[in-house]
This record gives sequence, C-alpha cells and structure tokens, in this order.
Amino acid sequence: MSKLDVKKLDCSVAQTLNQIGERWTLLIIRDAFHGIKRFDDFQTQLKISPTVLSARLQSLTKNGILEKRKSHLDGRAFEYVLTTKGLDLYPVLLSLMAWGDKYMPNNAGPRMKLLDKKTQQPIRPVHVLAADGRVLSAKDVVVRPASGSDEKMRSLINYRSGG
Amino acid sequence: MSKLDVKKLDCSVAQTLNQIGERWTLLIIRDAFHGIKRFDDFQTQLKISPTVLSARLQSLTKNGILEKRKSHLDGRAFEYVLTTKGLDLYPVLLSLMAWGDKYMPNNAGPRMKLLDKKTQQPIRPVHVLAADGRVLSAKDVVVRPASGSDEKMRSLINYRSGG
Repeated sequence: MSKLDVKKLDCSVAQTLNQIGERWTLLIIRDAFHGIKRFDDFQTQLKISPTVLSARLQSLTKNGILEKRKSHLDGRAFEYVLTTKGLDLYPVLLSLMAWGDKYMPNNAGPRMKLLDKKTQQPIRPVHVLAADGRVLSAKDVVVRPASGSDEKMRSLINYRSGG
Repeated sequence: MSKLDVKKLDCSVAQTLNQIGERWTLLIIRDAFHGIKRFDDFQTQLKISPTVLSARLQSLTKNGILEKRKSHLDGRAFEYVLTTKGLDLYPVLLSLMAWGDKYMPNNAGPRMKLLDKKTQQPIRPVHVLAADGRVLSAKDVVVRPASGSDEKMRSLINYRSGG
C-alpha cells in the first residue's frame, strides 16, 4: 500500500493513520505513555531494530507527537516525551487496549489495572456517549455532512443514508 | 517490521494492532461503519487494488471483524458486514477521528456531524473518564499490574512507577 494514496483522502481517520497507523509507531506511543523516554529503553522493551526505531522516533518527532529534548539527568543524553498532541492520543490508546482485552484476553485475567490517581478507583471504560450520558453504538448515531465535507466524504456519508 | 515480532507481545494494544493496525484495514473498517458492504463499493471509495482489498477483507473476515454473507438483494452477490466484534471498534474509530479533526483539520470546518439518532443532538467527544465522570488525562491515571500481567508487562508498568 502506498502512503501517498492514503494522504489524498481528506478524512480525519486517514490523516490520523498517516501519522500513527503503523504497528511500531503505536507501540512506541504506548511505551511513551508508560513513561519510557530513552532510545535504549524503547529498544529493550520493543526488541526493535535501531534503524526502524530511529526512523519511527524521527517521524513521531517531525509530526509533533513526541518532543526530543536533552535529559535533565544527563545533559549528553536525549529523551523523547509526549507533547500535548501526543498525550491527546490517550483515548485512542485506551480504546485499542479495551478492545484487545475483550477479544484477545490473557487467560490469567486483565493485563493491567488503570486507576484514577485521585480516588484510586478504576477508571471507566472508553465509550461513545450521548449528550445525556447514554452509551451509544454505531447504530445509534446518524452521520451528516458538515462544512468541511469534501465531495468524497459526502459520497461516503450519503452512501449510508442512501443505502 | 515483522508481524511475528509484534505477535509475541502479550499486550492488548499489540494484539489489537495485529488485527487492525494497518492503514487500509482501518479505512475498510471506517467504510464498513459508513454502511459500505460490497467489494466494488469498497474499491470505489478507497481506490485500492483488488488484490490488496481482497487480502484485507479476507483477513478481517478470518479475524471475525467482518462477516461475509450472501446479499439479501442479490443472492449471487456477497457483502461484508461488521460483526459485534467489529462494531465494538466504534470508540477506536471515533477517537482516531476526533484526534485527526483536532490536529489535521479541514480549514472549511468539521468533516462530518455525528448526531444521537434519538435526540438529534451532537454526541459527546470520546474521553477517558473517572468513575465520577471527570475527564482524565494520562497523568491522572495510575497503572498497576494485574493477574494477567506477564513479566514483560510488569517491567513496562514498573518502569513508570520506578522512573
């Protein structure tokens, strides 16, 4: 598949996948959420080739998802930390995680617990919610074109309402 | 990168990416959520080669995300529809979409409107929420090992608490 072909689609999902839609990239982001910062630590965790890791870190930095900065502890070392844009991927990460836990579970139980730091209570599962808080499935949601819908997007949206 | 390497990680995100972590795969899922069912319609929307599309549809069917069935309208034609497992990817899709709309916007405005079918009101943005409904960022969440954490997962989790 070609990255260029996907770039042509003016769709938020396509644009997003262009920046993060690759297995290693999303696993690097996952590790960054776990607090991993150093090149060597990413490599140890992911068992990934230095060449691939270096390319992925560079692309994540170029896209403003990670920031490369000098380590506070060792001025000669660099570390990669999530920017605000990167941190905003948290719902993506947790919804991927919940789906994996549901459909590809570890037989011994959940792989990790996620607790609200303030109350130490488990956080809620990530759901799609109505304004009044009802949990919605795709079948409860209507899609309408908006000011930023190009012709391709309108055809995709109208497909549903039409068919 | 090798698919096998990623398979070895007992992590919900890694396992999920093994089934859906590829650009075309996620765009096929996006189109299926828009109600596209037929091979030719996926191809028209995605401008993807028939060989690639066929391989991706086969893998999505094998993984139980799409179901291949005979069309109700034309018994000789086949269609691909989301299973319950596939429909459960809705929070993943909407969180990817929201992130793309925020960071790679179309200058003319939002690309589509998502309305609650029952009330015709906009749905809520996908957020990570505390039990009491507060919106949480990654910094508000503590990660703890659970019964299904293998050694690799424990090392990843402890990295954060340790460092």
